[in-house]
Amino acid sequence: MNYKELFEQIKLKQSFLCLGLDSDFEKLPKHLLSFEFPVFEFNKQIIDASVKYVVAYKPNLAFYESLGLAGWQSLEMTVDYIRDNYPEIFIIADAKRGDIGNTSKLYAKAFFEKMNFDAITVAPYMGEDSVKPFLTYKNKWLILLALTSNIGADDFQYFSENKQRLFEKVLEKSQDWGDANNMMYVVGATRAEMLKDVRKIVPNHFLLVPGIGAQGGSLQEVAKYGMNENCGLLVNSSRAIIFADSSENFAITARIKAQEVQDEMRTLLKAKEII
Amino acid sequence: MNYKELFEQIKLKQSFLCLGLDSDFEKLPKHLLSFEFPVFEFNKQIIDASVKYVVAYKPNLAFYESLGLAGWQSLEMTVDYIRDNYPEIFIIADAKRGDIGNTSKLYAKAFFEKMNFDAITVAPYMGEDSVKPFLTYKNKWLILLALTSNIGADDFQYFSENKQRLFEKVLEKSQDWGDANNMMYVVGATRAEMLKDVRKIVPNHFLLVPGIGAQGGSLQEVAKYGMNENCGLLVNSSRAIIFADSSENFAITARIKAQEVQDEMRTLLKAKEII
Repeated sequence: MNYKELFEQIKLKQSFLCLGLDSDFEKLPKHLLSFEFPVFEFNKQIIDASVKYVVAYKPNLAFYESLGLAGWQSLEMTVDYIRDNYPEIFIIADAKRGDIGNTSKLYAKAFFEKMNFDAITVAPYMGEDSVKPFLTYKNKWLILLALTSNIGADDFQYFSENKQRLFEKVLEKSQDWGDANNMMYVVGATRAEMLKDVRKIVPNHFLLVPGIGAQGGSLQEVAKYGMNENCGLLVNSSRAIIFADSSENFAITARIKAQEVQDEMRTLLKAKEII
Repeated sequence: MNYKELFEQIKLKQSFLCLGLDSDFEKLPKHLLSFEFPVFEFNKQIIDASVKYVVAYKPNLAFYESLGLAGWQSLEMTVDYIRDNYPEIFIIADAKRGDIGNTSKLYAKAFFEKMNFDAITVAPYMGEDSVKPFLTYKNKWLILLALTSNIGADDFQYFSENKQRLFEKVLEKSQDWGDANNMMYVVGATRAEMLKDVRKIVPNHFLLVPGIGAQGGSLQEVAKYGMNENCGLLVNSSRAIIFADSSENFAITARIKAQEVQDEMRTLLKAKEII
């Protein structure tokens, strides 16, 4: 999917919601455990219920890897299910990979060829040759960690040289490797005020913003400081939507929660005269 | 495996060789392709041939993930094979993972419980809560990226604040999270002279040193600047050993190449009066 198509989807659905499929096996509604692939069954029902309000789904790989082979099967089945039924959806592998050149190339192959993801999150620590292999695929996206939503972001991401902080260095340096048509950045909603500084360096790029919902970030603040004229935001929520209800009605509740977020997003898009 | 046991193995085998199982499907000897799990068959023969000269094996996850389910099966079979036949071996998942706290916890579970690895490589960018979950397992190890062997290491790892470079900040800050009994660091052999600076901050820790062999680093230099009285080094070679020969004799050639490295290592251990 390219930049324009993604923006069209945002306008069509009046939403920039990315729903995180952090489908923790321990938290699944109990009645799903009798299925051969409970995680896939959970995802399928969540997707069917929420898709009207969602432009992107983002499985975090840890929740699948931790289940071994059955987890990987559930992940592949989930991606295939979305592709077959909702081809308009943007699918992000939240994998936070990154390795030396010849190895990153294989990760790119795994996520873009073997599985048909649109985008993958990548950690910047190892620099250019660890990042570039993800940028060689047409209509695929690299999402580079810049300023993350967790508390540990303070440890290294604000480290600074001549008043430039590391996350700013990552934003700046990576301009040599790709552009707004194949790169996005992770910027945590828990650090919404920093979006002002981020936008000074990358005014046009899409930002993947985790941290609203369970992590406590504010959607209003994110839009205030981060939204550009093409929206430029994919705001992620995971636990607050998919695990809002652990009863047999979990999917209906997830739909209601997703719709609540989308309602707020529509208002914000209108205020910015995007729709 | 604990620090003392690892050091004992090094003295016993007169080697600090870590053999990287970067078992690229595209490079496997052709006669193995008729096996149901060619990658596992390759690994098994490489392991049987080289184990006398090796203290650690290190599969890089990318080479397995890129094959999908069959890759993960080959990885699990490889770990199980080593555990069953060579329980004295230290096994490293070269995964370069790292995510927010609750997610890193699941990666730790995947690699330390679901699969029985001794250690996992982790990227430091996301800080403390992304790292700590790997430090809660007894006799398991976190191996944190500090100064990597690839060219892209220049992009961010030398970024500096008040004359402290980012890789030094990583070494220093992580002293709050663990110690020489549960943490190691990746320092590339291609930057051997930097080992002097690394050792100023972490004199006692084991270092995992990739980059000799195909990447061109020098074992002599690594030992000169990095070896401490408990050796303190696991030096990795991958392609230069496992893909030295693509004929049916590949395992015999790998054994010879591993023995050549071990010969050099024995000399270095003797020079330091460790054996």
